[in-house]
Amino acid sequence: MTDAAATPARGRRGRGGGGAARRAERSAVSFETAPTITRNIPNLEMLSERTLEIIEANAEQVLEEIGVAFVDNPAALERWKEAGANVDGERVRIPKGLARKLCSTAPSQFTQHARNPAKSVIVGGDNLVLAPVYGPPFVRDADGGRRYATLDDFHKFVKLAYMSKWLHHSGGTVCEPTDVPVNKRHLDMLMAHMTLSDKPFMGSVTDPVRAQDSIEMCEILFGADFVRDNTVMTSLININSPLTFDETMMGALEVYAAHNQASIISPFIVGGAMAPVSVVGTLTQVLAEVMAGVAYSQIIRPGSPAIFGTFVTSIDMNSGAPTFGTPEAAKITNGAGQLARRMGLPYRSAGSFCGSKLPDAQAAYETANSLNMGLLSGVNFMLHSCGWLEGGLVADFEKFVLDADQLGTLHSMAAGVEDDENAQAMDAIREVGPGGHYLGCAHTQANFKTAFWRSEVFDYKPFETWEEEGARDSQALAAARVAKLLSDYQPPALDPEIKAKLEAYVADKKASMPDSFM
Amino acid sequence: MTDAAATPARGRRGRGGGGAARRAERSAVSFETAPTITRNIPNLEMLSERTLEIIEANAEQVLEEIGVAFVDNPAALERWKEAGANVDGERVRIPKGLARKLCSTAPSQFTQHARNPAKSVIVGGDNLVLAPVYGPPFVRDADGGRRYATLDDFHKFVKLAYMSKWLHHSGGTVCEPTDVPVNKRHLDMLMAHMTLSDKPFMGSVTDPVRAQDSIEMCEILFGADFVRDNTVMTSLININSPLTFDETMMGALEVYAAHNQASIISPFIVGGAMAPVSVVGTLTQVLAEVMAGVAYSQIIRPGSPAIFGTFVTSIDMNSGAPTFGTPEAAKITNGAGQLARRMGLPYRSAGSFCGSKLPDAQAAYETANSLNMGLLSGVNFMLHSCGWLEGGLVADFEKFVLDADQLGTLHSMAAGVEDDENAQAMDAIREVGPGGHYLGCAHTQANFKTAFWRSEVFDYKPFETWEEEGARDSQALAAARVAKLLSDYQPPALDPEIKAKLEAYVADKKASMPDSFM
Repeated sequence: MTDAAATPARGRRGRGGGGAARRAERSAVSFETAPTITRNIPNLEMLSERTLEIIEANAEQVLEEIGVAFVDNPAALERWKEAGANVDGERVRIPKGLARKLCSTAPSQFTQHARNPAKSVIVGGDNLVLAPVYGPPFVRDADGGRRYATLDDFHKFVKLAYMSKWLHHSGGTVCEPTDVPVNKRHLDMLMAHMTLSDKPFMGSVTDPVRAQDSIEMCEILFGADFVRDNTVMTSLININSPLTFDETMMGALEVYAAHNQASIISPFIVGGAMAPVSVVGTLTQVLAEVMAGVAYSQIIRPGSPAIFGTFVTSIDMNSGAPTFGTPEAAKITNGAGQLARRMGLPYRSAGSFCGSKLPDAQAAYETANSLNMGLLSGVNFMLHSCGWLEGGLVADFEKFVLDADQLGTLHSMAAGVEDDENAQAMDAIREVGPGGHYLGCAHTQANFKTAFWRSEVFDYKPFETWEEEGARDSQALAAARVAKLLSDYQPPALDPEIKAKLEAYVADKKASMPDSFM
Repeated sequence: MTDAAATPARGRRGRGGGGAARRAERSAVSFETAPTITRNIPNLEMLSERTLEIIEANAEQVLEEIGVAFVDNPAALERWKEAGANVDGERVRIPKGLARKLCSTAPSQFTQHARNPAKSVIVGGDNLVLAPVYGPPFVRDADGGRRYATLDDFHKFVKLAYMSKWLHHSGGTVCEPTDVPVNKRHLDMLMAHMTLSDKPFMGSVTDPVRAQDSIEMCEILFGADFVRDNTVMTSLININSPLTFDETMMGALEVYAAHNQASIISPFIVGGAMAPVSVVGTLTQVLAEVMAGVAYSQIIRPGSPAIFGTFVTSIDMNSGAPTFGTPEAAKITNGAGQLARRMGLPYRSAGSFCGSKLPDAQAAYETANSLNMGLLSGVNFMLHSCGWLEGGLVADFEKFVLDADQLGTLHSMAAGVEDDENAQAMDAIREVGPGGHYLGCAHTQANFKTAFWRSEVFDYKPFETWEEEGARDSQALAAARVAKLLSDYQPPALDPEIKAKLEAYVADKKASMPDSFM
């Protein structure tokens, strides 16, 4: 089943934001955002048909025999009973075939609208949407070192994401603004995404009430009618692996699904701790969990958008530390993509994962391993695609721009290989002949500007120039780019009336409750 | 056609080295080398059948219409004429179908023997052999900075390669020993590979005479009979792209092919300079060049082992600098693999390519992009798989061990996914159940030691420990590993008689000619 709004986002004419916003926009500075990646290359499929069938059969067995726990959520248990599951205490055992049948009403792709219609994204199919890091309590940069994140840091990351050409999405909790009370943070975070950027964003999931606030703020931004008919948020619903669905996350899911807003249903797995140490065992549990979660979203509202999520990392059995960019995580990322496609669901996985404490070689090897596998595994929504450091404890400014730059390679790779007459270049080969060179030939002159992807951060200078200029490493080059981008930043235009209404909403909400840091 | 020696290398009982060497070996310290990678995962195939057919047809057209130049090599021209080509001056035009027909006698895989039979490698098929960086005139490490390479550096790299578990091959010119006369370097380099390591190695290609010396030294090391019947060297024959075969490289190829020794026939291409700026145009030229080169090796001796080589990088059109780890290079690496498999030839490409001046994040992103694409493109022989820096001008000690460690991820990835009962882990999922954890369960206890690949260089420590220990980045951690490995090094045993003969050979050769630094 496909969302009716699955026409190319680029072709849409926006209803969100209204005429005033569009007029204001024309007078503002804008930063280029590349279209969503559409793959013209095949996916890598590492798992055989036989292995996939084993996993699918075992996942059904897990759901029927072991079941899943819906904790502190009597209404959910009631819904499951009505849907045909066997409920025993908080344990929900789902007869074989039932979860998959319930999942079948979820759309295979959907459009998440941005307030700037040109930046709406299609999630699913051959598309890949890139979103920044999510969740770190710390930030780090070369100057300030590692420290607790603040709202000011949050604003900076939203600005950087807005200005990053290869990033399609503003994300959600790009870092935790720890200087704002826990029960009010979501208001400031949403305000930042709505006003400092015009890219699509995520809603709050830390409490059903905050999910409801997210919806209400979107009703101000997009108009209540628009939000009723369209998906304007994609939010991250983590499963408490193994096989446990807690009342907070499920409460948020219930709000979003009921409002036809998208949820990423995502097991959060450190292999060996929250799942078996084997790839097939982990994939079995992932599939069982995702099927139960997506099925539940469809019980709430058939047809509401849900994404097959997989966050998996391995563990260093010496230290117990989670490890990233490893071959085991790559295999799980790849196999989960195959499973997601067989279910006809959009797929979320991979990201700029690394365990390193610095944006150094370790960080980059681990990150590149994960980004490449994400592209080749058919990921449709890549959260954490830039800025992740130290196992997700830290959002790193320099790594953010380094990763965001690398995302350009995914765009170029996915474009595949053209084979028209110009691409064949036979005239160039004739013109140059044995022993010649191509720099000056007509074909090169006609094509060189678009022929090769080029980093905007890396050093391509001769050694001597590089040395004279201070022999800067990637971190130093990236720090300079962060400073430049933040100094160039200008906000996208927004109808002042809408902005005033959002500000009033946030002020009222904040005034309505005491601060809480719990 | 397949080399008769294509039985698994691990099963062979060695004739090379003799009984004395084997006895000596038992008393020596040995370092573990992982078996050659055998892929249990599918290759990524980015190019469509249609695009491949266009490239193949165009390459035949290039050979017939434009042809290739064999420079300063009248004997080669005579051979081509006899084989059916149209020779006009130094231009060799090859009628459609002829080059491919000549190539068909080259084996699809072959065994390159090491003096330690357990380290012989199969090149071709589903196998991947990893060899270190080749050719840099400079070396670099954190302590000494960037400097001209010496024989002492060369020795250190051979030792590091010998001790690297994931590296199968000792390589060739791991760096240029610039303190040794050009006309005598090859003797010292071969001596180092033969005595400091027991892994397979490459021969000299800088002059046909030096290729002959390489053969003669192998006759001492392996025995003349053994060398007559077996392939004991794989050497790098670069094509002078576009479409030019110079007399030095062809002279070396002639020596090696005549002795049934393997050659990598490899276009050396900076896209936009030595080939068209488009992927399909470059692949067309690569295929034409490789077909001409491999065909020539088969004219010299039908059945001699030849590898389809592809060294391709893109160019930064702003600065003219070659750039590495780019999507365009990835596509060419991938497409050339498809073309090589369609010819039934072993394939060489990819490596630890980067343009960075330091082993920093840039170096690692670029390298990881290339290593991953190499694995997924069906590469059979990966030269430069570790240690490459600054566009190949520098062999870097820290990057060598960082890359060599990352090669472990390729091993694990290629192993694919097991789906037997143990891998399914259903008992573990039952045992743990919703809300439990896997760390202590029976399945984890039985499998954790082999479940996850683990870096031997990266930092996996908690932040506080890492900070107390000096907050070291990857470069610093790698520098410590280099020092440790070199201090632990012990040479593999070698029959003292053979060693003495090699020393005498080298001394005689050196005495027979004046030093030349040209």
